[in-house]
Amino acid sequence: MKLSKRVQACELSPMRKFHPFAVEAQAKGRKIYHLNIGQPDIATPEVYFDAVRNFASPVLAYAESPGVPSYLAAVQAYYDRLGAHYDESEILATTGGSEALSILMQCILDPGSEVLIPEPFYPNYATFICAAFGSIRPIPTSPEEGYHYADRALIEPLINENTRAILITNPSNPTGVILTAEERQMLLELAREHDLYLICDEVYREFTYNGEGLVTMGAMEDPGENLVIVDSISKRFSACGARIGCLISRNKALMAEALKFCQARLSVATLDQLAAAALYTVDKSYFEEVREEYKRRRDTMMRKLKAIPNVTCETPDGAFYLMAALPVDDADKFQQWLLTDFEDHGETVMFSPGHSFYATPGKGVNEVRIAYVLKESDLSRAIDLLALGIEAYQKIM
Amino acid sequence: MKLSKRVQACELSPMRKFHPFAVEAQAKGRKIYHLNIGQPDIATPEVYFDAVRNFASPVLAYAESPGVPSYLAAVQAYYDRLGAHYDESEILATTGGSEALSILMQCILDPGSEVLIPEPFYPNYATFICAAFGSIRPIPTSPEEGYHYADRALIEPLINENTRAILITNPSNPTGVILTAEERQMLLELAREHDLYLICDEVYREFTYNGEGLVTMGAMEDPGENLVIVDSISKRFSACGARIGCLISRNKALMAEALKFCQARLSVATLDQLAAAALYTVDKSYFEEVREEYKRRRDTMMRKLKAIPNVTCETPDGAFYLMAALPVDDADKFQQWLLTDFEDHGETVMFSPGHSFYATPGKGVNEVRIAYVLKESDLSRAIDLLALGIEAYQKIM
Repeated sequence: MKLSKRVQACELSPMRKFHPFAVEAQAKGRKIYHLNIGQPDIATPEVYFDAVRNFASPVLAYAESPGVPSYLAAVQAYYDRLGAHYDESEILATTGGSEALSILMQCILDPGSEVLIPEPFYPNYATFICAAFGSIRPIPTSPEEGYHYADRALIEPLINENTRAILITNPSNPTGVILTAEERQMLLELAREHDLYLICDEVYREFTYNGEGLVTMGAMEDPGENLVIVDSISKRFSACGARIGCLISRNKALMAEALKFCQARLSVATLDQLAAAALYTVDKSYFEEVREEYKRRRDTMMRKLKAIPNVTCETPDGAFYLMAALPVDDADKFQQWLLTDFEDHGETVMFSPGHSFYATPGKGVNEVRIAYVLKESDLSRAIDLLALGIEAYQKIM
Repeated sequence: MKLSKRVQACELSPMRKFHPFAVEAQAKGRKIYHLNIGQPDIATPEVYFDAVRNFASPVLAYAESPGVPSYLAAVQAYYDRLGAHYDESEILATTGGSEALSILMQCILDPGSEVLIPEPFYPNYATFICAAFGSIRPIPTSPEEGYHYADRALIEPLINENTRAILITNPSNPTGVILTAEERQMLLELAREHDLYLICDEVYREFTYNGEGLVTMGAMEDPGENLVIVDSISKRFSACGARIGCLISRNKALMAEALKFCQARLSVATLDQLAAAALYTVDKSYFEEVREEYKRRRDTMMRKLKAIPNVTCETPDGAFYLMAALPVDDADKFQQWLLTDFEDHGETVMFSPGHSFYATPGKGVNEVRIAYVLKESDLSRAIDLLALGIEAYQKIM
C-alpha cells in the first residue's frame, strides 16, 4: 500500500519524538524534568471544572459546527475588551489552535504555495503546511540579534508569486520576541500591498514581561481582510488538555471556506467549549499573578543558564520559551544521550532540539528550545542537570 | 488573497448547510424535528459524567499524542472481546471518527489518488478526500436492490492504478446495509490482491437489527496490513459531543505516519478521553436496551413512511438511517421550503437531501437521508409533518 508523498516529507514533532526514550527512562525509575513541552504547571482555574461538573443535560450532544454560542460570545467579549470587535460569524471554534492552523492552511494553500515565517518557528507549522502541500520560506534571524525579524528590507525580497501568507507568532514561540507597534503596522501594510494573508498566532498574548499590556493585531486601525488570528485557551488559562481554540477573521470568503471543514468534522467537544466560556470570566488578577510567576521563572532561568560556560542566549520578552545555543555537537544526539545514558541522583532533563525549529538546513543544530513552565525550584534543578549533562557529554562527544 | 482550489471544490455538509434557515425558523417560533443529523436522544451513560466530575488533577494537561493510556487500554479490551487483538501501538486516539478519517486520507492520498466508495455514502468522506487532493470513484448501487454493493464483479473493474483504498461503512450510514461474512471476506481478499487499504468505518457496530452479533473486520482471519478501522464512541454511547474516536491498524508504516499528524495537533481532549475509557465499562444490557429501542423506532418509521403515497424505501438492517425517494422534484429545494414556507401547528421537519450522498452527478436528487434518532412519538409526528409537507409542496412544485 502506498503512503502519500507529503506525509513522508513531514517530520515527527521535536517536542514529542523523544517520548519513547522518556518512557524507557521512566521505566528504569528516572525522574525527568520536562522543559521540552509548553505544558505549564499552573493550576487551571476552578471555574473550568465547575462548568464541567454543572453540565446538566442527559445527552452529551454535538455542538454547533461553528462553535457553542456561549463560547463564541465569550471570545467576542474578550476581544472587545482588547479593542477589537468581531461579529460572531467572524469567529470559529476549533480543537485547539492546532486545528485552526490545520484548517487555515488547507483553505489557503495550493501545491507550491509558500508561507513566509521567521525562523526559528513552532515546528508543527511545518507539518500543517506540508500536509496542505505548501512550503515554508524562512525569514532568517540570528541569536546575536535576539531573533528579531520584523524588518521590511529583510522580508519583502522573499515575497514571490507563490507567497500566500506571512505567519508570525506574537509573542513568539520559541524565541520570546515581541513586536513593537511600528513593526505590527509594517507587517500589516506589507501583507496588504502584496495581497497576502497575515496570520497572527497570538496564543501567548498574556505572557509579556516588558511592561506592555495585552495586544492583538485585531485592534489595529483597519486590519481588513488580510488579518487572520489564531488563538487558544491552552496557555492563557493553563488548559492545554481542553483542546479549545479559535480562528478569527473579517475575511468572509475565507471564513465561509473554513466552515466547510468545521462542518465536515461536525463539532468541537461540547463540555470543553462550555468550560472554556467559563474561563473567560476569570478575574484580571489571575493573569497578573501568572505573569509575575513566569517573570520570576524567566529571571531564574536566565541567571542559571548564563552561569553555564559557553551557553549563548538572550533574555526573552514574552511567552515562556527561549532558544539557547549549547556547547555540544548536536542537540538531538545530546537529548537522546541524556535519556539513555545520563542520570544524576536518578534524574535527567528534556528540552526540544533546535534544528526542527528551522527550515534552513544546518541551522540550529546546537540550539535548543527550553520551556520555563516549571516552578522555580524544579527549573533550577533542571538547569543544574543540563549543566552536569553538558559537562559529562563533552567528555565523550 | 487566494483560496485553495481544493477547498473551493468542497461542499458544505448536507446535514448542516440548512442550519442558518433552521435558526431563522426557530427565531419565528417554529419547532423543528431534526431527522437530519445522527444525534441520538438516548441518555449518555452516567459513568461518563462521573469520570469527568472525578478528575482530581489541578492542571488540565495535554494528553499523550497517541492517546491517554486508559482510553487505549479500554479500546483494546473492547476489541479483544470482539475477537480482534490489537497492540496499544496499533490504536491511535482521535478527535472523533472525523479526525481519524482526515488523518488517514492525508496519509494515503496523493493528488489524483482515488478511493472506491459505495454510493450513497457519508458526505463528509468527500470533504476529507477532497482536502487530501484525492477523489471518490463511486461503486454504484440502486434503491431497488436495497443499496447492496459488495459484488466483486461490480467493484473490481473500478480499480485502476490510482486506486489507493476501498472505504466502506458497516453497518452503513446512510443506507443501513450490513455486510455478510462472505462479503467481508471478499472485500478483504480484493484489497489484498490489489494492494489497497480496506478502510472500515465501524462506528455503528452496535446498531444491528437482523439478529447478528457484534462484528468487526478486525476479527477476520489474518486481516493483515490492508485493514484500517475507524471507530468512535459518538453513536455507541450516545456521546457525540465528546469527540472521541480512534484509528486502528496493524499496518506499522501507516501508523507511524499517522503519528506525525497526531503529534502535530498535540493531543486529544484529556477529560473526554478519560470519560470515554469509563464508557467502555458500561454493562452489555445498555446496548441491548438501546438496540431494542432503535429497532422499535425503525419499525415505526417504516410503517409511517410506507403509508405516504409514492415514497420508495427499503427496510434497513443496521445503523439508524435510511434513504428514501420522495415524490418531489428536488429534495434540496423541498427542505429549504419546509424551513421558510411550511409549518403545521408551528412545527416543521428537517432531513438531509440525498444528492450530496452521491458522487455521480444527478443521482439522489429526489432522495433524502432520514436519521431515526428521536423517540417514537416524535418520529411519528415528524413523519406526519413530512407527509403534510409533501402534500402542500406538490401543489406549488
